[in-house]
Amino acid sequence: MERIRTIEAAAHEGRRVRVEGWLHALRRLGGVSFVVVRDGWGLAQVVATSEDELAPLAATGAGVESIVAVEGTVASAPQAPGGVELRAPRIEVLVPVTEPPPIALNKREIKTSLTTLLDHAPITDRHPQRRAILRLGACAMAGFRGTLDARGFTEIQTPKIVAAATESGANVFQLDYFGRPAYLAQSPQFYKQIMVGVYERVYEVGPVFRAEPHDTTRHINEYVSLDAELGFIASHATVMALLRDVLAGMLAALAEGCGAELALLGVALPGVPAEIPQMHFADAQELILARRGVDVRGEPDLSPQDERWLGEWARAEHGSDWLFVTGFPLRKRPFYTHPDPARPEFSNSFDLIFRGMELVTGGQRLHRYGDYLDALARAGLPAAPFVWYLEAFRYGMPPHGGFAIGLERLLMQLTGVPNIKLATTFPRDINRLTP
Amino acid sequence: MERIRTIEAAAHEGRRVRVEGWLHALRRLGGVSFVVVRDGWGLAQVVATSEDELAPLAATGAGVESIVAVEGTVASAPQAPGGVELRAPRIEVLVPVTEPPPIALNKREIKTSLTTLLDHAPITDRHPQRRAILRLGACAMAGFRGTLDARGFTEIQTPKIVAAATESGANVFQLDYFGRPAYLAQSPQFYKQIMVGVYERVYEVGPVFRAEPHDTTRHINEYVSLDAELGFIASHATVMALLRDVLAGMLAALAEGCGAELALLGVALPGVPAEIPQMHFADAQELILARRGVDVRGEPDLSPQDERWLGEWARAEHGSDWLFVTGFPLRKRPFYTHPDPARPEFSNSFDLIFRGMELVTGGQRLHRYGDYLDALARAGLPAAPFVWYLEAFRYGMPPHGGFAIGLERLLMQLTGVPNIKLATTFPRDINRLTP
Repeated sequence: MERIRTIEAAAHEGRRVRVEGWLHALRRLGGVSFVVVRDGWGLAQVVATSEDELAPLAATGAGVESIVAVEGTVASAPQAPGGVELRAPRIEVLVPVTEPPPIALNKREIKTSLTTLLDHAPITDRHPQRRAILRLGACAMAGFRGTLDARGFTEIQTPKIVAAATESGANVFQLDYFGRPAYLAQSPQFYKQIMVGVYERVYEVGPVFRAEPHDTTRHINEYVSLDAELGFIASHATVMALLRDVLAGMLAALAEGCGAELALLGVALPGVPAEIPQMHFADAQELILARRGVDVRGEPDLSPQDERWLGEWARAEHGSDWLFVTGFPLRKRPFYTHPDPARPEFSNSFDLIFRGMELVTGGQRLHRYGDYLDALARAGLPAAPFVWYLEAFRYGMPPHGGFAIGLERLLMQLTGVPNIKLATTFPRDINRLTP
Repeated sequence: MERIRTIEAAAHEGRRVRVEGWLHALRRLGGVSFVVVRDGWGLAQVVATSEDELAPLAATGAGVESIVAVEGTVASAPQAPGGVELRAPRIEVLVPVTEPPPIALNKREIKTSLTTLLDHAPITDRHPQRRAILRLGACAMAGFRGTLDARGFTEIQTPKIVAAATESGANVFQLDYFGRPAYLAQSPQFYKQIMVGVYERVYEVGPVFRAEPHDTTRHINEYVSLDAELGFIASHATVMALLRDVLAGMLAALAEGCGAELALLGVALPGVPAEIPQMHFADAQELILARRGVDVRGEPDLSPQDERWLGEWARAEHGSDWLFVTGFPLRKRPFYTHPDPARPEFSNSFDLIFRGMELVTGGQRLHRYGDYLDALARAGLPAAPFVWYLEAFRYGMPPHGGFAIGLERLLMQLTGVPNIKLATTFPRDINRLTP
């Protein structure tokens, strides 16, 4: 008999079907036993009414997480997963597991320490709740790509082993490249800009690496960056308008492709306003002084606390989970950042705060060759290590800009998990290289 | 006036439009001059009939690769790109470029050494031919994902910084991870197998890293791997059937999404037979002896020459660009490889040869915990570094397998470029870390 997926069972009511998967749970209630089978998509409840039906489990000592195949007759059962159950089952044990797993996978919540949960991620990622959180990432990536594909963007893949640090030179992982030092890319920034010279509109979904030695709830050392960059923009406002549409497209893809996961998690997706509220960096600092009595006006950047306050203000004032802060001081932004023509101490850059946390950074970049030479000199950086990058500007680049969305931060803020490591399949932090 | 893309011009015949892009070429032919504008998607031919119309170029010294905007009236011109040209133009120079680029971008062929071409990749990637080759990668990736999405696969992103080498321990890049040694992933093998325990069917598109010190036309040290892995298979044959469908889906996506690029390159896509011909490794060695008089029967693997011969045979005998070679000797395959139950010195593995070159490697993996412990012991490997990986098998894994397609090799073989570096935006080789 051909196997069906658990989530397809309801379409076969009254017929015999075969499901295969993991023995998720076995509950004995007097004369009736419930066998729950988990496959890659969902759960199926199997009802056994005799010990004979369960004999294959007993004979092999098969406990939870054993690989089983079950044939049964599909019958309506409103309280069961998918509204059906399998009756009169024939159970077959494909791979018996006789040891209990390091954490219980068939309880509603995972009750264990963060360390234990992450140490055993190959097993804990199987928990329906973990699996749902992590699967949201697939839907988010699909929405990112789909929205940009529809706007004439080309997907690129750029090198992760690089000769020079992208952002600043600090916080890079160094590796041995055939006897020479090389680094892991902190972002595809240089390459995505260069590729604007080729395709004008490009995006990349890939890993980035940050050797930041701190251990916080909102940082990991390797994460997935959703990068976009486009040419022929008017200013960073063009980029912000695109980002708004990309976020709306990602949320639509989540609603469409991950509805079951969102329902399981009890997550209601936020709307994205047609115009996301925005505020200049200088005004944000004034607002914090006026509302919170804390004077951060000398600071060149926003702190996590500032972001939380601004997020609360956006929700209270605009009913928005989203807030653009624009015009960050130029001196704290990377050398390729475009100044604000009207106020050159500020920049044509932005952060997008989502529920009180920076989710996206972006802005307009310099595009004239001479401006790059000036900016490098002002930053005290030699031009020689960047000569290949500068070539793109030397031979014609339009006004351009882009942004980078941190995938795990998006999942963290959507699902409300308290630590970004819980929004990652196999996180990397200062102490953790496995699993 | 709102800008249109060059490829949209034909839809505006008789109307004024504005295009923006790079000054691709300027050809003066007596009283008539042809200005060719290149944007991210194609070319537009602009016809100037007076020096006044060209004055903005002369005034700024703007040469090729300058960023320009041109307004003009769309008129039919069958010999021009897209079948139309822009007449009575108003030209504006947005960013003048006064130096000629390191290679000519407006000649049909790129005439330069491989080294010069790669040294100046930020510019040479703009050449219409290069740009078309590289864009095929985007279509291929989309086809890979689309085919697997339709079959219930989940996209994953797994760590690239790892504690242990995946395949063998040799040929890995080592890096400094907060004072500890770590490595760059040679493949997502361990993680994609673990994730079969979570979603059953998974795929990943991402970079892999091989510290192979040789310099050949078919290797680069960082490449894009299209990985898939699925559970509940009968044997490697299930994996091969899936791979066949994935390749067909990728070629369909190329035909649909990259038709213009294929036409520009003069590339005719190969068909994928409903059943790709296949041959056992041992039979392949016998065939080479019989047909070529070379006895390779003691060898544990196929050489590039063997692959070329087998590719020629598949074409002559079956009219196929594709050939599966199955049953590679177990001793040369990684420890997780599943043996052939009937002939345990061989394995349930395969390579797919495309036009005489290995394009895909795949097979069935071990799935029982005890088999892993035995295989590691037989390979003389300690189990301790793999304990997190082995946990997946300890707590229930179904029969499973998968494959990995090398994206750049696919593009190389499709387009016929003589070196894989020409199928890569910014290649990494033993000598090359930039651009």
